[in-house]
Amino acid sequence: MTTPSPLVGIIMGSDSDLHIMQAAADVLKRFDIPFELTVVSAHRTPLRMVEYATVARERGLHVIIAGAGGAAHLPGMVAALTSLPVIGVPIKSSNSIDGWDSVLSILQMPNGVPVATVALNAAKNAGILAAQIIGSTNRDVATALDTYKAEMNDEVSGKVKKLKSDWNNKFDV
Amino acid sequence: MTTPSPLVGIIMGSDSDLHIMQAAADVLKRFDIPFELTVVSAHRTPLRMVEYATVARERGLHVIIAGAGGAAHLPGMVAALTSLPVIGVPIKSSNSIDGWDSVLSILQMPNGVPVATVALNAAKNAGILAAQIIGSTNRDVATALDTYKAEMNDEVSGKVKKLKSDWNNKFDV
Amino acid sequence: MTTPSPLVGIIMGSDSDLHIMQAAADVLKRFDIPFELTVVSAHRTPLRMVEYATVARERGLHVIIAGAGGAAHLPGMVAALTSLPVIGVPIKSSNSIDGWDSVLSILQMPNGVPVATVALNAAKNAGILAAQIIGSTNRDVATALDTYKAEMNDEVSGKVKKLKSDWNNKFDV
Amino acid sequence: MTTPSPLVGIIMGSDSDLHIMQAAADVLKRFDIPFELTVVSAHRTPLRMVEYATVARERGLHVIIAGAGGAAHLPGMVAALTSLPVIGVPIKSSNSIDGWDSVLSILQMPNGVPVATVALNAAKNAGILAAQIIGSTNRDVATALDTYKAEMNDEVSGKVKKLKSDWNNKFDV
Amino acid sequence: MTTPSPLVGIIMGSDSDLHIMQAAADVLKRFDIPFELTVVSAHRTPLRMVEYATVARERGLHVIIAGAGGAAHLPGMVAALTSLPVIGVPIKSSNSIDGWDSVLSILQMPNGVPVATVALNAAKNAGILAAQIIGSTNRDVATALDTYKAEMNDEVSGKVKKLKSDWNNKFDV
Amino acid sequence: MTTPSPLVGIIMGSDSDLHIMQAAADVLKRFDIPFELTVVSAHRTPLRMVEYATVARERGLHVIIAGAGGAAHLPGMVAALTSLPVIGVPIKSSNSIDGWDSVLSILQMPNGVPVATVALNAAKNAGILAAQIIGSTNRDVATALDTYKAEMNDEVSGKVKKLKSDWNNKFDV
Amino acid sequence: MTTPSPLVGIIMGSDSDLHIMQAAADVLKRFDIPFELTVVSAHRTPLRMVEYATVARERGLHVIIAGAGGAAHLPGMVAALTSLPVIGVPIKSSNSIDGWDSVLSILQMPNGVPVATVALNAAKNAGILAAQIIGSTNRDVATALDTYKAEMNDEVSGKVKKLKSDWNNKFDV
Amino acid sequence: MTTPSPLVGIIMGSDSDLHIMQAAADVLKRFDIPFELTVVSAHRTPLRMVEYATVARERGLHVIIAGAGGAAHLPGMVAALTSLPVIGVPIKSSNSIDGWDSVLSILQMPNGVPVATVALNAAKNAGILAAQIIGSTNRDVATALDTYKAEMNDEVSGKVKKLKSDWNNKFDV
Repeated sequence: MTTPSPLVGIIMGSDSDLHIMQAAADVLKRFDIPFELTVVSAHRTPLRMVEYATVARERGLHVIIAGAGGAAHLPGMVAALTSLPVIGVPIKSSNSIDGWDSVLSILQMPNGVPVATVALNAAKNAGILAAQIIGSTNRDVATALDTYKAEMNDEVSGKVKKLKSDWNNKFDV
Repeated sequence: MTTPSPLVGIIMGSDSDLHIMQAAADVLKRFDIPFELTVVSAHRTPLRMVEYATVARERGLHVIIAGAGGAAHLPGMVAALTSLPVIGVPIKSSNSIDGWDSVLSILQMPNGVPVATVALNAAKNAGILAAQIIGSTNRDVATALDTYKAEMNDEVSGKVKKLKSDWNNKFDV
Repeated sequence: MTTPSPLVGIIMGSDSDLHIMQAAADVLKRFDIPFELTVVSAHRTPLRMVEYATVARERGLHVIIAGAGGAAHLPGMVAALTSLPVIGVPIKSSNSIDGWDSVLSILQMPNGVPVATVALNAAKNAGILAAQIIGSTNRDVATALDTYKAEMNDEVSGKVKKLKSDWNNKFDV
Repeated sequence: MTTPSPLVGIIMGSDSDLHIMQAAADVLKRFDIPFELTVVSAHRTPLRMVEYATVARERGLHVIIAGAGGAAHLPGMVAALTSLPVIGVPIKSSNSIDGWDSVLSILQMPNGVPVATVALNAAKNAGILAAQIIGSTNRDVATALDTYKAEMNDEVSGKVKKLKSDWNNKFDV
Repeated sequence: MTTPSPLVGIIMGSDSDLHIMQAAADVLKRFDIPFELTVVSAHRTPLRMVEYATVARERGLHVIIAGAGGAAHLPGMVAALTSLPVIGVPIKSSNSIDGWDSVLSILQMPNGVPVATVALNAAKNAGILAAQIIGSTNRDVATALDTYKAEMNDEVSGKVKKLKSDWNNKFDV
Repeated sequence: MTTPSPLVGIIMGSDSDLHIMQAAADVLKRFDIPFELTVVSAHRTPLRMVEYATVARERGLHVIIAGAGGAAHLPGMVAALTSLPVIGVPIKSSNSIDGWDSVLSILQMPNGVPVATVALNAAKNAGILAAQIIGSTNRDVATALDTYKAEMNDEVSGKVKKLKSDWNNKFDV
Repeated sequence: MTTPSPLVGIIMGSDSDLHIMQAAADVLKRFDIPFELTVVSAHRTPLRMVEYATVARERGLHVIIAGAGGAAHLPGMVAALTSLPVIGVPIKSSNSIDGWDSVLSILQMPNGVPVATVALNAAKNAGILAAQIIGSTNRDVATALDTYKAEMNDEVSGKVKKLKSDWNNKFDV
Repeated sequence: MTTPSPLVGIIMGSDSDLHIMQAAADVLKRFDIPFELTVVSAHRTPLRMVEYATVARERGLHVIIAGAGGAAHLPGMVAALTSLPVIGVPIKSSNSIDGWDSVLSILQMPNGVPVATVALNAAKNAGILAAQIIGSTNRDVATALDTYKAEMNDEVSGKVKKLKSDWNNKFDV
């Protein structure tokens, strides 16, 4: 069986980041968006990183999701080497100062080379953002995203009902 | 004369943010991407914000760029109301604590509702990121982005040459 | 049995915040102030939020207490949609950077739209503040608040006595 | 001529804070809410502070607005001495570390003694919050607050129109 | 048996701080400096605090050590009410934002009213500093402090010797 | 004419800190406490620092005030070398990150070696604290300190009166 | 058996830092670089520190690695006393405020006295940096460092292969 | 005329950093250490950066000094590509959040790839550190560094003398 050509590449600096980054993969599966996932380390495999980023567009990728912790250079360096949109996931790794280093070294890119940064450890949101980027021109994905929004809304409605049995609430009559 | 239908909506919480956000517009002009620009305030015009975000996709927008300062709720609230990709520009406004409030209230969105955050005041990068999103499926924009990258490279080469007249440099022979 | 019409609305972005926000309810019970409690999510149920805030005054609420974590937009957005006093409770949720994001995105509201912010996770103080607001014109609540203050004082006096058995203290003779 | 009995007491740690705190007074004037304004220093006039806070309710005040910078103890100490609602304004004074000290020493009050904290230097919002507290039971003030909200909305509409002459905007047709 | 008149008063905002503040007492015992220890809460017993600080000098105290967490007003308010040296111990209490609030609201006192601040949770150092203050004119205490310094030095020498059995060290021959 | 033997030694890491540290000298002059002032650099003159601290007590000093910026080691190292009380003044020097480095490297001393830290740039408070230490056993200085407190109080009273001409104030009748 | 004369001195403020600093020793063993390891405390053994640093070069050391936590003065003071390169390891000790104090008091040295600072707790990197300094003129060490880099690269390649069995990856064919 | 083969390579992300980085060059000139200086941008010229770092050792460099601001990836990426010691200079560029982003993205490198980080904007110290690295095996440079230390000491002695004319100082007799 052949897997479809991936539209999203999920890369991370270390396989120790997989337990965080897997959430991006889970979301993309839900939206039926083909993706690939592997380890690319800016600091331990810099030439692999150069190669991965350089050929990303011609290999058919539309978006790259890159997660890294500490002095997190992977998202920004990949963005320097491709003109595809790059989504950066700051990871609060064990060597991080409360996550601030990861956040700032991904977010604060200089003019000319943006990284679309999501919240600390928010790989799930990186997956949704990748879907939104694809959904900006793909009607099926857009519809699926709207359904996802409706489901989040419904989930809250369920919670509202459940809370009503224990707590006074004159708003939801 | 009719202006083309905008693909990118640039909105900001206040016209006092225009001197920052204009850089996004300038970049989109360079890439020949039609856009619109206006003021939408989450806190002073919340219903306008709801309306703007709700009809954004059906109006033909592909990406929204939202800039705001202080407790910056505009990007996240717009992202709550549309499934289009939303790019957030944290602005170091006069009432901001060194920009940290703007950065954190845009970046740290909960799971389910991402905002593609760029660096503090980095409206230019927001424009480039919007172009990259459009360029992920539009070959002309992709080519223009690669040209832009090449020009940045050339600009550095020019600086290298200029510095060589004053400083020893055995690398660039 | 009918419950009295609530004067205080306690809302929170997620039912996972209930273990924190319940302290506000407990305090209001103590002061015999009728309240309601439910989930209103700025990002997952934005239209519910608009509706809740818009009709709050005409439904008879005097104060709204809103708790949220991370990029916490609920208190500020509710404050944008009602002219009732809104008390914001920053919550150190699991996706928060040590609580700074919650604090700053609730506290740093722009001119025109204040949120009465209390300490991180301080739902109990939010309840007391709501009672103080009601007590500013309600003599019974004011008296109950003074009694509460006296009880806090007495509780310390008890601790002082207990400590005296183990530690020298020439002040309390 | 006699001035009406004040409902709001505006106090500040030093007259050097007057240029910030005056904004609270300006707002209260607009809402026709009688107020008083003076200097009460927690550290230089601690007994004056005790007296001011202790008799505040019996003197007819409904709300106290207290502004202070650096290790800002005035709002919290006043809140310890009265059961009236106390609004704290953190001021970025000359001896402040970027305002963080003022914000944290006002906001982070222990359980039992809340201070309704507004944004750094946001005396204007303190005035509006005081009006909202009074407006929670005073229909005239409530109406004036709704008018104020409408005016903020209108002001943005004016800006929107003005921007339309220079920038494409297909939303506001 | 009568206890000697205390030279140092150790006070804290809550008995939950005792496990931290006890270290100050332990040090003073070692230096044979009479002290007293009790609870004085700035926010729950403000008048007790005023009384404690006001009569401290006439009661014979030479130094006050005050520990508090969160928006820690006790050390600074005591310093406002006495001209004795006041040592402040910032405590990382459960409601503290990583200790920053305690540190800043004790350290950043305005001109005219200093608090001698020690490190976060460093009640032991507060005790030593109190001894140093007393030792600045008391020869016995000064000698004991020099002995204490020598013992710290000796303790390191012991560790150096112990490490030498496992690790190469050509410096200590 | 001979100057009296100094009780307080004011030292600083660089003469560029003199414009800050002079405030300590001014205060000591006011309280008629003899002092000396010079430059002692931990990093540029480490042996001078060792000598200065080692002989400080035998030279008759009672207190040392040490000011430094950036990675400010002078106060802590002096405290390591003498058992006199050492007051540290963090200075926001040109190479400082908003003063945080100076504050933390002076404040956060390990157990056994306290530094009495005052607010950022608060050399005046360092001088007052030195006077308070001396005044803990010297009645004349204690009286002068109480007078100083009374004058601060009076100065506020003057401001209160002045403000009354422009602003309503029913408290001060 | 005689141990070779050490080229690198590893020192730390307390033996409680050994579990962190041992990683530096482990790396130097791998590169066959002779080293010594002992405790030198800036604050408890200041004269030992002066002696250690002063004779370091004449004893044949080429590099000193110094680790310390909290107000970490050891690396900077050693750098003040020797002209050898000093590598500083900030340690997140129990008395540290999330490591910020250690980082800033090591990193922010004044002009004239640098400390080569590595990441929080990064003793392993301190060892590698020491090897790189020695390897800048020693071919054997340089070769060993290149081998080390290659091994890190290979280790990632192994992870890439392992991940391929579970995850789609069209890049590594 | 031929310039000597450089031992130190000074590179920076942008020529706008030259006014900071020039201080490294000035120091190396003083120590007669041949160096080269040019622009290498991680984000705008990533392949130039790969080439520069890869051939650095074979070109005869002993140390690389790399300065960059914001999300500063240059020092860390160069360190990933060479086993020479790399000194990183965090620069407080115009797009930096008070320098924190530059500091953290240079300092917080993962295990295996150290960067010898100096203080914010401390290019002078980067130059001295490079000289210290070379001086660890080069006696002439070592001697020059000791002379430099002596001169810093003498400069302070001059300041001490000058201050003595205005200020009492019984230490320097």
